[in-house]
Amino acid sequence: MPGIPPARYAYLGPEGTFSEQALRAIPAAANAEQIPCVSVADALDAVRRGEVAAALVPLENSVEGSVAETLDELAGGEPLQIVREVLLSVSFALMVRPGTSLGEIATVTTIPHAEAQVRQWLRSQLPAAKFIAASSTADGARAVAAGDADAAVAAPLAAERYRLEVLSDDIADHPGAVTRFVLVSKPSPPPPTTGADRTTVVAFIADDHPGALLELLTEFAVRGVNLTRIESRPTGVGLGRYCFSIDAEGHIAQERVGEAMAAIRRLCADVRFLGSYPTADGSTPGERKGTSDLEFTDAAAWVQQLRTTGPA
Amino acid sequence: MPGIPPARYAYLGPEGTFSEQALRAIPAAANAEQIPCVSVADALDAVRRGEVAAALVPLENSVEGSVAETLDELAGGEPLQIVREVLLSVSFALMVRPGTSLGEIATVTTIPHAEAQVRQWLRSQLPAAKFIAASSTADGARAVAAGDADAAVAAPLAAERYRLEVLSDDIADHPGAVTRFVLVSKPSPPPPTTGADRTTVVAFIADDHPGALLELLTEFAVRGVNLTRIESRPTGVGLGRYCFSIDAEGHIAQERVGEAMAAIRRLCADVRFLGSYPTADGSTPGERKGTSDLEFTDAAAWVQQLRTTGPA
Amino acid sequence: MPGIPPARYAYLGPEGTFSEQALRAIPAAANAEQIPCVSVADALDAVRRGEVAAALVPLENSVEGSVAETLDELAGGEPLQIVREVLLSVSFALMVRPGTSLGEIATVTTIPHAEAQVRQWLRSQLPAAKFIAASSTADGARAVAAGDADAAVAAPLAAERYRLEVLSDDIADHPGAVTRFVLVSKPSPPPPTTGADRTTVVAFIADDHPGALLELLTEFAVRGVNLTRIESRPTGVGLGRYCFSIDAEGHIAQERVGEAMAAIRRLCADVRFLGSYPTADGSTPGERKGTSDLEFTDAAAWVQQLRTTGPA
Amino acid sequence: MPGIPPARYAYLGPEGTFSEQALRAIPAAANAEQIPCVSVADALDAVRRGEVAAALVPLENSVEGSVAETLDELAGGEPLQIVREVLLSVSFALMVRPGTSLGEIATVTTIPHAEAQVRQWLRSQLPAAKFIAASSTADGARAVAAGDADAAVAAPLAAERYRLEVLSDDIADHPGAVTRFVLVSKPSPPPPTTGADRTTVVAFIADDHPGALLELLTEFAVRGVNLTRIESRPTGVGLGRYCFSIDAEGHIAQERVGEAMAAIRRLCADVRFLGSYPTADGSTPGERKGTSDLEFTDAAAWVQQLRTTGPA
Repeated sequence: MPGIPPARYAYLGPEGTFSEQALRAIPAAANAEQIPCVSVADALDAVRRGEVAAALVPLENSVEGSVAETLDELAGGEPLQIVREVLLSVSFALMVRPGTSLGEIATVTTIPHAEAQVRQWLRSQLPAAKFIAASSTADGARAVAAGDADAAVAAPLAAERYRLEVLSDDIADHPGAVTRFVLVSKPSPPPPTTGADRTTVVAFIADDHPGALLELLTEFAVRGVNLTRIESRPTGVGLGRYCFSIDAEGHIAQERVGEAMAAIRRLCADVRFLGSYPTADGSTPGERKGTSDLEFTDAAAWVQQLRTTGPA
Repeated sequence: MPGIPPARYAYLGPEGTFSEQALRAIPAAANAEQIPCVSVADALDAVRRGEVAAALVPLENSVEGSVAETLDELAGGEPLQIVREVLLSVSFALMVRPGTSLGEIATVTTIPHAEAQVRQWLRSQLPAAKFIAASSTADGARAVAAGDADAAVAAPLAAERYRLEVLSDDIADHPGAVTRFVLVSKPSPPPPTTGADRTTVVAFIADDHPGALLELLTEFAVRGVNLTRIESRPTGVGLGRYCFSIDAEGHIAQERVGEAMAAIRRLCADVRFLGSYPTADGSTPGERKGTSDLEFTDAAAWVQQLRTTGPA
Repeated sequence: MPGIPPARYAYLGPEGTFSEQALRAIPAAANAEQIPCVSVADALDAVRRGEVAAALVPLENSVEGSVAETLDELAGGEPLQIVREVLLSVSFALMVRPGTSLGEIATVTTIPHAEAQVRQWLRSQLPAAKFIAASSTADGARAVAAGDADAAVAAPLAAERYRLEVLSDDIADHPGAVTRFVLVSKPSPPPPTTGADRTTVVAFIADDHPGALLELLTEFAVRGVNLTRIESRPTGVGLGRYCFSIDAEGHIAQERVGEAMAAIRRLCADVRFLGSYPTADGSTPGERKGTSDLEFTDAAAWVQQLRTTGPA
Repeated sequence: MPGIPPARYAYLGPEGTFSEQALRAIPAAANAEQIPCVSVADALDAVRRGEVAAALVPLENSVEGSVAETLDELAGGEPLQIVREVLLSVSFALMVRPGTSLGEIATVTTIPHAEAQVRQWLRSQLPAAKFIAASSTADGARAVAAGDADAAVAAPLAAERYRLEVLSDDIADHPGAVTRFVLVSKPSPPPPTTGADRTTVVAFIADDHPGALLELLTEFAVRGVNLTRIESRPTGVGLGRYCFSIDAEGHIAQERVGEAMAAIRRLCADVRFLGSYPTADGSTPGERKGTSDLEFTDAAAWVQQLRTTGPA
């Protein structure tokens, strides 16, 4: 469409990483300009500065856990909002310059996060190889191509890009690993409810009295809102001071989720809402009796009647 | 005021009972017509039929506990509403026909509820006397006057009325007993909040799964609403099937009370609201951080903003 | 058996009451001497003084609720122990002197507890009849025989005994009412576990801070011990000060029940154990995963090992 | 002492890291042989193989949070035990080859974990500098000395070792950052209670039903055991499947901690005890009424008496 520039999407680069692969799963990004960034912070700041429409960053991995940098960058700074999530099967390959054999590998490079996922394999297959930390899996592949390391652990995509040879495919210690990416944009009205939604929020406990987390969880539980992820993160002011990054089933537009959000807002020193968006796998939450929107609005109407006209 | 008949108030009679004494504590009833009824059920039915403006009935006693008949009559039938409570110090006297000495007492009469409160005294002072159940403390005094019993345990007021002699005053085993009466009228807008209010409600558990009561209490607790009385009552359909009569601190017009009421409405098979009214002793509830009306409305506004415009 | 006097059993008399009928359901009492007492207190004191082997007293009724006198007499005084329970279907009959017709009944007598269970029937069938409180259902029948009242509401057994005529059978407002009686003896080792047992206990809250009852219930819930009855009773020191009479599923000899009992002992100002005994209806509690005796002892052994030798 | 080899201690190397600095705080390690290891896994495996008496590894940092590799290595494999903790103030310095000025720095290297702690500083002072991931802070310093990068963020100790010049001291975004290290050995009887102890444990939820974490926390809370850290970690079998790494106040030898440990053992699919050991800062837990060792043993004795002789 002449005159209208295509949307731009940032991702955790460089090219050839899993993030780029995940971005391809988003139709709107297919024809858009894709901007690789050197860090999650850079990708999110590009959103904040309005340079890109959205950024795709990894949030958690089924083996390695949460991506601390993403959690922390979303928890602080100018508010951002998750509008979508993408699940990507993560398959690591061991790649070398063409001709290198397994026995010739003295050094292996990748990011520590990936190294942790293939550690058992490396111990058994390359017990003598030395690990060199890379700044991304793709950069590890680049380093191998440049002769700075003998082998890289990276996405198969990177082998193509850097003309490397895959010696062994799917070497993760836990096969079937999945990484969850989130598409982050500037604040805007949340996408509509689909019936299969997730809400992400960061809760800063008011004071670290014993039982504060128990109280927080209880506010969700009494309203029938299930949590699918809870991650403590330090607030930076000392050991033992945490905030909690939480994924809850449901959408802020739903009564039970809205009331639970309001409750933790009252309970906590601060709450940052990070978005309500469709679940990538379409999983729908179970709904406990008494927690449907209809039951919430009926009960609220009943209370309103009691207040104005008394019991009927 | 010519042309306007005075209001009529029913009470648990006959004349000379503690209920009549309590009714005098209500200024509006002082110049009104006072109608003694033979039972709590009769007094409340007089309200339901519109024959009286309100009825004063006993709800609980600090020694003998709840008055089951009152709880059950309020929990069923046409809805009624508590608009006021009255506390009355209950002082029992042993009264006889003039000239009777302690040693001559072979039979003592009063209502079982009162007998229970002076049992230790009777055991030690009149170990051989036989107890005859009366239908009211005043009727016991009348029976003594008629020669059907030797002594009655009743309110001092009854001695005057039936020309009996008080042999011993204040004979309750637990001195300082207090009875709480409630003034019950037809449904109407609750009296305004005073800052020192109580809300009474009956909750019918949805199904008797283990932990149902725990869930009920948790709904109040998470919203900072304290309970001052909870009483289980059978629903009549079998052992182990109960409803709960509950007094909570605060007024239905308060956000935390309203949300708690809506929550138990969603949780329970049925909830009957019995009124929000000032506490007789002016006791004000403590307010837990995060549960003021302002905090509730602020949090609700925040959620509303998230729903419509996203995080700010 | 010559030389050995038969055991003596007390019950809430007089003869002809439901208590006597319930006592017959206990084989050991069939050939024993049966002693009617004028009150629950008298029956229990007879046990305390060693005059009888045990006393059978009513604890609760499926329509009228707990029998306050029984709860209070068990909660105070010298310790006693429930060793058995009996369930009795309670069927009330309206009885008159032979020849009296329904239209001739001006006065009806029974105990208030029974009157409450037939109130609807009386209102519709005998709207003009006056109620006279009796001290027992049997005594009401005796009064009718003596001409002091026109009709009595009592157990059919009483009609036989006092040669009255039953005008109407089974007049209870809630058909199928059941009364639960307990057999009480002096403290002794509890009867062995049967797999279908109940434990009765009285808990005196340490201080009436909000949430004390919630804490109490949580101690049972976390250990998978279900409660089948909980009743608040005033402690006599003022409105708002309660103790709780509790029935829990299971036997003190079971690990989960024992640990829960120890927990409330630590939590409360005082706890009075009233016995573990077989349920009359053979109902067996569900057993939540992780709460069997085996799991308790395995876990305790594991902790003991950690303490002495560290993790294995 | 001739004939007895000195104890050997492993630490997360290479030399010049914060781990080495922390190891010096342990008197027993001062004269021992100190073995740098290339990873936490290597350090812990050295303990498992018996090559060293113990290993010192970082567990969490007040800014960057838990060290995932340490949590995961302790949660799996042959059981190990924490016997001590060390707190170390973490102060980062920017170091260069002598003569390099701030304006000449084009590349900065350190471990990502450290980069995250100085990110704001780098953004404002060296906005154009490119970040190169190193495998340790000390290795970053080595790389600068070798000319592979212009500046390193590392412990001041590393500047000495690699003859670098400190351009700026204490550049962390959150001054006062603290890292907590744990000394890990093979299983053995835990060190004795000091009154200021901590217990570390990993709990594998039995099934991921909603509320499983709430149940887990409740088991600690009802026994008055406070948690000072809780960290979810994926179990590797899929998104949404977690275990929890937990620090609790108190010592396994204490009754309340032992009972809580037994409770989660019964509740969870698996529990791994990682040790009870003195807190580094001597912080003593508050003790809630009813949870002292004396109250636990008294209550247990009371239950035992009930079981054998009945109520006294």
